Amino acid sequence: MPRYALKIEYDGLPYCGWQRQTSLPTVQGAIEDALAKLEPREHAIVAAGRTDTGVHATGQVAHCDMEKDWGTFRLSEALNYHLKPAPVAITACVRVDDDWHARFSALERRYLFRLVSRRAPLILETGKIWQVRQPLDLAAMQEAAKRLLGRHDFTTFRSTICQANSPMRTLDVLDIEQVDRRDGAQEFNFHVRARSFLHNQVRSFVGTLERVGAGSWTPDDVTAALEAKDRNRCGPVCPPQGLYLAEVGYPEDPFA
Amino acid sequence: MPRYALKIEYDGLPYCGWQRQTSLPTVQGAIEDALAKLEPREHAIVAAGRTDTGVHATGQVAHCDMEKDWGTFRLSEALNYHLKPAPVAITACVRVDDDWHARFSALERRYLFRLVSRRAPLILETGKIWQVRQPLDLAAMQEAAKRLLGRHDFTTFRSTICQANSPMRTLDVLDIEQVDRRDGAQEFNFHVRARSFLHNQVRSFVGTLERVGAGSWTPDDVTAALEAKDRNRCGPVCPPQGLYLAEVGYPEDPFA
Repeated sequence: MPRYALKIEYDGLPYCGWQRQTSLPTVQGAIEDALAKLEPREHAIVAAGRTDTGVHATGQVAHCDMEKDWGTFRLSEALNYHLKPAPVAITACVRVDDDWHARFSALERRYLFRLVSRRAPLILETGKIWQVRQPLDLAAMQEAAKRLLGRHDFTTFRSTICQANSPMRTLDVLDIEQVDRRDGAQEFNFHVRARSFLHNQVRSFVGTLERVGAGSWTPDDVTAALEAKDRNRCGPVCPPQGLYLAEVGYPEDPFA
Repeated sequence: MPRYALKIEYDGLPYCGWQRQTSLPTVQGAIEDALAKLEPREHAIVAAGRTDTGVHATGQVAHCDMEKDWGTFRLSEALNYHLKPAPVAITACVRVDDDWHARFSALERRYLFRLVSRRAPLILETGKIWQVRQPLDLAAMQEAAKRLLGRHDFTTFRSTICQANSPMRTLDVLDIEQVDRRDGAQEFNFHVRARSFLHNQVRSFVGTLERVGAGSWTPDDVTAALEAKDRNRCGPVCPPQGLYLAEVGYPEDPFA
């Protein structure tokens, strides 16, 4: 059976996350239903990252196995046709080897988190950005972000329902970039990279760093919280609407 | 009565344009209804530009006259409170002189039009950008845009229902900027400036220039269409969802 890698963009808002669940809308379910329109049978696709309820993706990657040899252009066009009007699109499609695996072949997950500080409600980006009202100190957030880099026991920054065997992870990148906006408000883009993440890890980071930006935590408080290895020491977990699975890194980019 | 200038952001999608209409949802109506919560009476606010159905604004400007001396912070906060959940927000509010007029004091209107060329459906910016499928030639569009600059009879580029007395207008700026997108697709931002515009003028420009970008019109065709002063010679009028009233220019920026 020919295997295809799919690059996928979606709006997480109407979905109970990526992973298929009985009688709940999920992104995996939407794509598998579209595949069933092309080859009527049960489909089981595999993704690089199982995003949570409300989390978006611009570069999720999954693979699917087909019986027929679809051309890649025809497969992506047919899937996008059958996905409508669901807010999910296949943005790239390539043929991969039978042993290529969207999840196990992945070396890195890259997330983007968008945070805006503005007094007036955001109108044109509702559901796409986390908005706070108070000004934020970029330098303080950047200093605190450094404390999280490297290999650590991230118990403080993972959900109590996280199913990973170990709380040890290596955080490779946590860059915070301030973006010029047309409305003059402060926007912060958090670029976060690791081989893999714990459940709610990025949102636990951003929620905690926002407290540093607002001045109610210091960078040293973040170090202390990390070292405590205690979930109760985490800052507030921020909402999902600013989070995007942006890219997945493989030994060779299948879409290049 | 103290007069206030309001800077306003809105999503045009659910509205039948700016201007109040009996029993149809309009942006002016939404704001006047919110004002009536603060001072219960009929309100009549005046805007710099009367945007069409589906057209957005990031920098619409209007003025209102109040009986009470509201502080500017309190007035904008109260309006935003009463506007919820309408996709309209007051992003700035200042006290102005009694003879300051949002429409008649304005020297320039600045519009932004966002156009994306991408094969896969746009998911995260639905209703905020005009999407086309075919690649577009930036240099050809820029060359054609130059032909429209300056003072002309723009009969070709105005709606047949345009109520302006004269089709003569001076187009000061029509810059097309190509923007780097995270998804690798081509995005073109049209920056358009004039003292005032005819009905559907920006959308007539962009729809025509897109035909040039796609290769079905030449820049010379645009010159010929302009010189014909004939509405039937206009290219297709593009849809409203990519259009934003971005800024209004005054002799002195009241919000500076």
